[in-house]
Amino acid sequence: MDNRLINRRDLAFQLYEVLEVQALTQRARYADHSRETFEAAIDTALRIALDHFASHNRKADEQEPRFDGERVHLIPEVAQALKAFCDAGLMAAARDYDQGGMQLPVTVAQALLALFNAANVSTAAYPFLTIANANLIAAFGSEEQRRLYLPPLLDGRFLGTMALTEPQAGSSLADLRTSAVPDGPGRYRITGNKIYISAGDHDLSENIIHLVLARLRGAPPGVRGISLFIVPKYLLNEDGSLAERNDVTLAGLLHKMGYRGTTSTVLNFGERGGAVGYLVGEANQGLRYMFHMMNEARIGVGLGAAMLGLTGYLHALAYARERLQGRPPGAKDPAAPPVRIIEHADVRRMLLAQKAAVEGAVALCLYAARLVDDQQSAPAPAQREEARMLLEVLTPVVKAWPSEYCLRANALAIQVHGGAGYTRDFPVEQFYRDNRLNPIHEGTNGIQGLDLLGRKLALEDGKPFALLLARLGDGARAAVAQPALQTHGEALARAAQRLASVSELLRGTLTTDPAQALANASVYLEATGHVVIAWMWLRQALVALAALPGASAGDGDFYRGKLAACQYFFRYELPEVHTRFDLLASLDRTCLDMDERGF
Amino acid sequence: MDNRLINRRDLAFQLYEVLEVQALTQRARYADHSRETFEAAIDTALRIALDHFASHNRKADEQEPRFDGERVHLIPEVAQALKAFCDAGLMAAARDYDQGGMQLPVTVAQALLALFNAANVSTAAYPFLTIANANLIAAFGSEEQRRLYLPPLLDGRFLGTMALTEPQAGSSLADLRTSAVPDGPGRYRITGNKIYISAGDHDLSENIIHLVLARLRGAPPGVRGISLFIVPKYLLNEDGSLAERNDVTLAGLLHKMGYRGTTSTVLNFGERGGAVGYLVGEANQGLRYMFHMMNEARIGVGLGAAMLGLTGYLHALAYARERLQGRPPGAKDPAAPPVRIIEHADVRRMLLAQKAAVEGAVALCLYAARLVDDQQSAPAPAQREEARMLLEVLTPVVKAWPSEYCLRANALAIQVHGGAGYTRDFPVEQFYRDNRLNPIHEGTNGIQGLDLLGRKLALEDGKPFALLLARLGDGARAAVAQPALQTHGEALARAAQRLASVSELLRGTLTTDPAQALANASVYLEATGHVVIAWMWLRQALVALAALPGASAGDGDFYRGKLAACQYFFRYELPEVHTRFDLLASLDRTCLDMDERGF
Repeated sequence: MDNRLINRRDLAFQLYEVLEVQALTQRARYADHSRETFEAAIDTALRIALDHFASHNRKADEQEPRFDGERVHLIPEVAQALKAFCDAGLMAAARDYDQGGMQLPVTVAQALLALFNAANVSTAAYPFLTIANANLIAAFGSEEQRRLYLPPLLDGRFLGTMALTEPQAGSSLADLRTSAVPDGPGRYRITGNKIYISAGDHDLSENIIHLVLARLRGAPPGVRGISLFIVPKYLLNEDGSLAERNDVTLAGLLHKMGYRGTTSTVLNFGERGGAVGYLVGEANQGLRYMFHMMNEARIGVGLGAAMLGLTGYLHALAYARERLQGRPPGAKDPAAPPVRIIEHADVRRMLLAQKAAVEGAVALCLYAARLVDDQQSAPAPAQREEARMLLEVLTPVVKAWPSEYCLRANALAIQVHGGAGYTRDFPVEQFYRDNRLNPIHEGTNGIQGLDLLGRKLALEDGKPFALLLARLGDGARAAVAQPALQTHGEALARAAQRLASVSELLRGTLTTDPAQALANASVYLEATGHVVIAWMWLRQALVALAALPGASAGDGDFYRGKLAACQYFFRYELPEVHTRFDLLASLDRTCLDMDERGF
Repeated sequence: MDNRLINRRDLAFQLYEVLEVQALTQRARYADHSRETFEAAIDTALRIALDHFASHNRKADEQEPRFDGERVHLIPEVAQALKAFCDAGLMAAARDYDQGGMQLPVTVAQALLALFNAANVSTAAYPFLTIANANLIAAFGSEEQRRLYLPPLLDGRFLGTMALTEPQAGSSLADLRTSAVPDGPGRYRITGNKIYISAGDHDLSENIIHLVLARLRGAPPGVRGISLFIVPKYLLNEDGSLAERNDVTLAGLLHKMGYRGTTSTVLNFGERGGAVGYLVGEANQGLRYMFHMMNEARIGVGLGAAMLGLTGYLHALAYARERLQGRPPGAKDPAAPPVRIIEHADVRRMLLAQKAAVEGAVALCLYAARLVDDQQSAPAPAQREEARMLLEVLTPVVKAWPSEYCLRANALAIQVHGGAGYTRDFPVEQFYRDNRLNPIHEGTNGIQGLDLLGRKLALEDGKPFALLLARLGDGARAAVAQPALQTHGEALARAAQRLASVSELLRGTLTTDPAQALANASVYLEATGHVVIAWMWLRQALVALAALPGASAGDGDFYRGKLAACQYFFRYELPEVHTRFDLLASLDRTCLDMDERGF
């Protein structure tokens, strides 16, 4: 099972060989750490992920949370998994020592938390939402709020939610209607309805801390009038003990295609006069606070999608190595024994496609996490600033590309299994259902396209985007300098030049005709994503190529596999960007002009 | 609901305007028919599909068939639906009058049966398998077999299966092991295990007639030694009444991601001495008989996939027309009312992508059905022969392209719904799960690629393939002659020329290095599919363009929608074939050479 959850060799490659996270231990904040402490933390996480999360992944899918009208019931394994997770201190993996944390670099913390997505994405959602919730309170809450809420959130006694979406507004946060009226100092009464609130109710913890976006009476319309409130399910006494039930009601559970173990709830706030809520930070800054966390949340979504793709790939690989069926072309003698299906070129194609997608996606997401580390703790201010800018422009790609292409990888994992993969006797169909959420939540991929093209391209006078182009150029040049990678480097350089010229055209069009410029934002996002992933593959290939001479036999196989997957991406995937850039360069209006009566 | 199941206007367009099925009534066999009788049959089918099939589509998904160790239990609606289907004579829609049939052309029969796939694919599987079973017995069974089995199969008292797959063999039919030993004249004892047998057990009918592939003792190895047997669950007396239970045991039900209402079974034949089976036709001809039906079965798979894509698209369209959310680019005033999401270009893109895929797929599958009609009843022998050849080469495309691209359409239908589409409160997630089977069964899409490139390309000295190329050229020229379609016509001509030159290269390589030639068979299949679908879009566009002057307002909208979807396909989809042809022309060995130690 272990080797179908993650590829430990690849994780070490990404962390230590490509991203060189061991260098982070030279920074004061991580001075107590070493590769050994990182590996020990990953060992712990992997053991808990296997023993307590993977072990009930199918059961949590089959026995969905149930609402009896009073309480929500989950299978007991979820609470046991949470306890093991919290007992190991994982809730505070990235937090400071003085908050009881492990003070791990973000890159390492994200990598080890990601293991839980591979093991059981629906149970992992409970602690992950709580970590995000606690991060927000830690960053923007008052001292009192931090004193009251952080300790029980970090030890798992309380769990948290993010209550953004409303039925009438969906992705359009400008249309949020939930209202807040003052009810004493720092205290408000909240009234409104929220939908798709993950972990919005359950029987896993003593209390549930909702972070709710709502409007103060008289606040400006749109996104500038949204504030953030702490709304606990049970109010707290001064000493942190539970007081009375707050006016938050579970209107019902939503039943989903996948991710079934995570409750998805409709919550009514203020059916009996108003739920008590506490303003976080300043009024009307709620969306800014939320988006501060959203960027990391979007890395989490991308990495989660990548991990579901990865475990699907590893299951398909194990199956293809064992399953006997058919014979190679030309070997038609039916008396000859059948071969393992991995010997069929088309099965190898499906495995390479998965490998290229999921390892490319993992590389991108961990690269983004590494940028968060640099943004937070790089010694030079210029390095911190560059990391911040790259993150701004890469975030929509980090969210969208893995959620699209690692879902496709999950479809291929089913295909490698044939009929078996379509049955629930094998886990790949569940990965596929679970992963289908990722292109939707935390900002649909359509919205990521609008963010990349409509906001990030021209952000700060285009500096962040120019920085990305420069890094792509650096990556291409480094590859061109190596004969074995020269062709790929040239291909990346051409693709990056196309991206630059098309982006310039679109940036101009944005000012003259935004509807025209944004009409193919999704195509732009997808093409940009492919260029970025090509760069990620060259980064890996350069490391593999350099390490190959003198590598052990096992490492040699691994590095050659990296070079082969890189070649796959450059031959089978990257060329598609040119047809997409052609379309974008033509400022095609087919979709924009489509008359709806013609559908 | 009606207008979310199918688009009746489009069906009429495909049947009467593009395929001109009314011309078939000039053939003696269909002389009693007219457009009116076709429409009346479709009316009947649509009413039954809505009232008796669509009505329990979700329930059949939620309440799966259950095996209590003795019997298999299904929800009662399935039997009621079957009764309505049989009572309306639909089981014999394409059969002769003297067999109690409607004697409808294959094209019309396929079109009206396809409605049941849109309504409820898992319940439809029971009659569809029975129709295929009956067709096989009608074509190859003895007079006695036809007398005994056809009447109860055609009136639904008996239902049928196709028992091909075995656990150890999977797609590799050469490795079938189920054995048959003589036990009296025409009578055999069958022993072996079959898996993934759809409708292999249930409580819907008095009897179940299995058509089983098995080997006679001493038969040649491989596919040349396979015979076909009728193996009823209950043996029949001379007068057709039920006699004792045969030695066929249900070992268990398989539980699937979708298609849940159709039982998928593991069957053991001969646990108590051998199941009684009756040889169909001649010994060792079983696979030939089965493949005679398989070509039509593969049209059925393609059309079924297209219909699931179609109903998903129509649901997404209805949702996009009603759901209010967000504002167009530039209209940032949050006080302005939100717009229907169909007004967003990216939503229109997702709808156009679905329309282009599903209407292109429907056009292809009905075109193939029309070829079956021509093969069977065209007046001129040359026309029958041409239809046969085109069918040979198109069949793998007809099976594979819709099953891949209409599944992608289902993914987009979910995406248009956003979070709602991921819940089971909307049907699109079920369409997506149901449709995921289609790339797998009736020959995986990987096998379709091997069939197209490895068999069909060089079949009959390449004549069928040359005929397809000629037809593509004709289609391109017809479009070039119309100024409004000239660009598309030229694009199709270029794509078809690429297909021709790459195919010539691969055909040569097939003889020198089959492993090399077949390494990218799936890529070849996908590129060929795109070229064929582009042709199907030009066929539709030519008809729409010609009908536009003087069309009613509603028809005008419809025809302009066709032209827009055609344009979408030519601008967003067709250009991708050139990167695929580049790859194929390079005889890329990345997948073939991949060392499995590198995964």
